[in-house]
Amino acid sequence: MKLQPLNDRVLVKRLESEEKTAGGLYIPDTAKEKPSKGEVVAAGPGKLADDGKRVALAVKAGDSVLFNKYAGTEIKIDGVEHLVMREDDILAIIS
Amino acid sequence: MKLQPLNDRVLVKRLESEEKTAGGLYIPDTAKEKPSKGEVVAAGPGKLADDGKRVALAVKAGDSVLFNKYAGTEIKIDGVEHLVMREDDILAIIS
Amino acid sequence: MKLQPLNDRVLVKRLESEEKTAGGLYIPDTAKEKPSKGEVVAAGPGKLADDGKRVALAVKAGDSVLFNKYAGTEIKIDGVEHLVMREDDILAIIS
Amino acid sequence: MKLQPLNDRVLVKRLESEEKTAGGLYIPDTAKEKPSKGEVVAAGPGKLADDGKRVALAVKAGDSVLFNKYAGTEIKIDGVEHLVMREDDILAIIS
Amino acid sequence: MKLQPLNDRVLVKRLESEEKTAGGLYIPDTAKEKPSKGEVVAAGPGKLADDGKRVALAVKAGDSVLFNKYAGTEIKIDGVEHLVMREDDILAIIS
Amino acid sequence: MKLQPLNDRVLVKRLESEEKTAGGLYIPDTAKEKPSKGEVVAAGPGKLADDGKRVALAVKAGDSVLFNKYAGTEIKIDGVEHLVMREDDILAIIS
Amino acid sequence: MKLQPLNDRVLVKRLESEEKTAGGLYIPDTAKEKPSKGEVVAAGPGKLADDGKRVALAVKAGDSVLFNKYAGTEIKIDGVEHLVMREDDILAIIS
Repeated sequence: MKLQPLNDRVLVKRLESEEKTAGGLYIPDTAKEKPSKGEVVAAGPGKLADDGKRVALAVKAGDSVLFNKYAGTEIKIDGVEHLVMREDDILAIIS
Repeated sequence: MKLQPLNDRVLVKRLESEEKTAGGLYIPDTAKEKPSKGEVVAAGPGKLADDGKRVALAVKAGDSVLFNKYAGTEIKIDGVEHLVMREDDILAIIS
Repeated sequence: MKLQPLNDRVLVKRLESEEKTAGGLYIPDTAKEKPSKGEVVAAGPGKLADDGKRVALAVKAGDSVLFNKYAGTEIKIDGVEHLVMREDDILAIIS
Repeated sequence: MKLQPLNDRVLVKRLESEEKTAGGLYIPDTAKEKPSKGEVVAAGPGKLADDGKRVALAVKAGDSVLFNKYAGTEIKIDGVEHLVMREDDILAIIS
Repeated sequence: MKLQPLNDRVLVKRLESEEKTAGGLYIPDTAKEKPSKGEVVAAGPGKLADDGKRVALAVKAGDSVLFNKYAGTEIKIDGVEHLVMREDDILAIIS
Repeated sequence: MKLQPLNDRVLVKRLESEEKTAGGLYIPDTAKEKPSKGEVVAAGPGKLADDGKRVALAVKAGDSVLFNKYAGTEIKIDGVEHLVMREDDILAIIS
Repeated sequence: MKLQPLNDRVLVKRLESEEKTAGGLYIPDTAKEKPSKGEVVAAGPGKLADDGKRVALAVKAGDSVLFNKYAGTEIKIDGVEHLVMREDDILAIIS
């Protein structure tokens, strides 16, 4: 299955699994959320402005990115955890 | 019954049924929602901008799509489950 | 009584009554809302943009439409149930 | 007392009193709100857009209108109940 | 103390005191709020649009106005109750 | 420490301390909030519009201002209480 | 690990640790939040406007800044606490 994200959405392969407690609940070690790391697998064509033009995204396939841990919608592709999120949920590119 | 979605709405035939428990409640296996798959049956003419122009949709009839599980309004057409949703609820095109 | 809806509002004659339980409460058979069918009786002149131009509506009198069940404000005209709703509450035109 | 509504506000004389229970609480006969009827007494000069132009209102003094029952702010003028509401709370013109 | 309201704010001298119960709580006689009367003492230079232009206000010093009872921030000037409110909280000019 | 507020933010030295009860809770004498007085110490360069232009602020260093009591973020500079707030939290200039 | 923040995001190294109680909860000494100090390590290229142009940020690497204590997402870089936040969470530049 190959996915082409729509508009300003981005498909990201998660590089770090979420820590969970035995009971399945996530226990953050502080009140602050820590971001997750991932790799951009596919980026949408950009946000569609009202005048019909697209505003290109700032990330592209292959970028390593930091994103908000609870961002996006999970989907398994060939058994590997991916997320479809809006580019706005991506905090930074890791280089 | 043939449906022509308005503006930025899309008619989608659901390809995977929702998993439900015996009692009818949906039990997600994690806190994260998983998306559903479907096929676009009809797409609206596009979002109507304030200047009266339409911004064409990025999906078209025949596209296989991934959409948020709880998106849209259900409607049965000839006994088959369909959904009318906004294009913004579609995450990606599956190819 | 004849009604001319304002701006982006639409007057719709409901074609299907809502199912209700004996006690008057509506019991949906799933968590998802199903839409209602109706016939457009009168459509407003269109949404008034900030520059004073009107953006014409996509529906017109005589259209059969599907709309969100809880949309609009009820009004009886000559004893028949009608609804005044915004065009945005109309999901699709039925043909 | 004569009132000139500001911007997109409209002064409406209510034509039908609200039904109330003996205890003063309003009991709707269904979950749906029914609109009220009124007569436009004075209409504002129109909404002021960011470029300083006014977008004229669609209603004018003398129009019979249907409006959301809970819209607006009540004011008595010469002992008669009036409401100052935004034009957007008016659903339709009655003719 | 002389006050020059900023942008779209207006300084209003209240002409009618709020009715209060002995215990200090306001008891409205219906569920609907009634507006208050006041006199505009000073009006701001107008709302600052994103392009740096000001959209002039529709009220001016000396106008008698009707405003939402709970609008604005109270301030005593020379022992007299005044309110600083946004023009949008003013319903109508009384003439 | 010298502070240059960003964009539409303003640094204000509070001129009147908040009244507090012995227990540390603020007890307003009416349900209405009263504004505080302060002196503008530094004003940001203005709000940055989407086209990259700045919309200059209406207040400048030295202005005596009235602001919403709970506006802004407190910071002590050389032991003196200051607040960094958005210009929109300033109600009026005192002259 | 080097981070390039996206759009209007900024990477900030926190200069002052948050005060915490023994039990791990933060106890503010007043109801007002105090801001934190930090140093900008990297700034995004600017907010992407709908017309595809970027609006440059007002802060740059090396700036000492004051920011809202609860702003942003924490990330440790080489064991040092950093935050990725939107520029709008930065109150002022310290000079």
